[in-house]
Amino acid sequence: MKVIVIGAAGTVGSAVAEALGERHEVIRAGRSGGDYRVDMADIASVQRLFDQAGRVDAVVAAAGEVHFGPFADMTPAQFDIGLRQKLMGQVNVALVARDRLADGGSITLTSGILTQEPIRYGVSATTVNAAVEGFARAAAIELPRALRINVVNASVLTESLPVYADYFRGFEPVPARRVAQAYVKSVDGLQTGRVYEVR
Amino acid sequence: MKVIVIGAAGTVGSAVAEALGERHEVIRAGRSGGDYRVDMADIASVQRLFDQAGRVDAVVAAAGEVHFGPFADMTPAQFDIGLRQKLMGQVNVALVARDRLADGGSITLTSGILTQEPIRYGVSATTVNAAVEGFARAAAIELPRALRINVVNASVLTESLPVYADYFRGFEPVPARRVAQAYVKSVDGLQTGRVYEVR
Repeated sequence: MKVIVIGAAGTVGSAVAEALGERHEVIRAGRSGGDYRVDMADIASVQRLFDQAGRVDAVVAAAGEVHFGPFADMTPAQFDIGLRQKLMGQVNVALVARDRLADGGSITLTSGILTQEPIRYGVSATTVNAAVEGFARAAAIELPRALRINVVNASVLTESLPVYADYFRGFEPVPARRVAQAYVKSVDGLQTGRVYEVR
Repeated sequence: MKVIVIGAAGTVGSAVAEALGERHEVIRAGRSGGDYRVDMADIASVQRLFDQAGRVDAVVAAAGEVHFGPFADMTPAQFDIGLRQKLMGQVNVALVARDRLADGGSITLTSGILTQEPIRYGVSATTVNAAVEGFARAAAIELPRALRINVVNASVLTESLPVYADYFRGFEPVPARRVAQAYVKSVDGLQTGRVYEVR
């Protein structure tokens, strides 16, 4: 299989690219590095990525910025960051993949534990994660050509604790290596419309 | 209590305004009628509504457009309708209410059964509904001054079946009068972060 991993320079994305790379041809893409540059928030950029990659069987999106900050003074513009980047960014990937992936191919998106477990400063993250999961649930029943779509929803990464531990006290962290296996399950499996939780 | 009902001319909104009106002062607002005009997608318009209404104890949002159509040719611009109107529209209401409602006041938003049960042509609706529920879940734990936020998630309305029956075959419809009671429960109750389902 040929698989595009968007966000391949990130903690999760690099673990996914490594795990998939054991058996598949992996194309690494990202905002600032990898085999190809891509800005998910711009659907034309995602289309160019697929133009460059040629025939592809699966795509993984492990990227997408969200604004973290106090809800007490959160503004529509701050909400818009997550809607543009993490939500519409991943929707754009799915829309292009819908038209370009090989028959039976798969789309794997990324949400996170904040969908179910809100934290201080995480209102935008919970909103966007919930939207991504809803999107995949609904898109799964309408995708043509036996295309599949799933979401990986992981707890806080062990690797992120040095920076984010204060926001995730009491959360059991998971190493990126374990999270990567959920993406592998989505890409190599047959299921669709699933949210794979890693806890 | 003084309660603003946004979307008060709609099937649900008018039932909510009637049910709340039995014991509360209700201010009816909407895009094209009622006591005051408001465009939820424009936060300045929502701020003007609160300026005009004076001291308010609760706000209900029972409005918000979403694009319905085949996922096979859905575009980012079509997705954007739901994100602007039903998602950011309701987020705007909550952001203004956060700053303006009387202490202990409540915010009640609207999602719908498509959150859990996707239908043909409903990808944008499921995405937006899930986002609204995520938003409320997270905002509930950060709202200041004992403010509360809940969501009402109803099945297809009995009153909507003449138009939408083909998209909701097998769904048990609920009359607007029953749905209105869930909004009453949110406004008059003490809970927060809840999704009240009406099935």
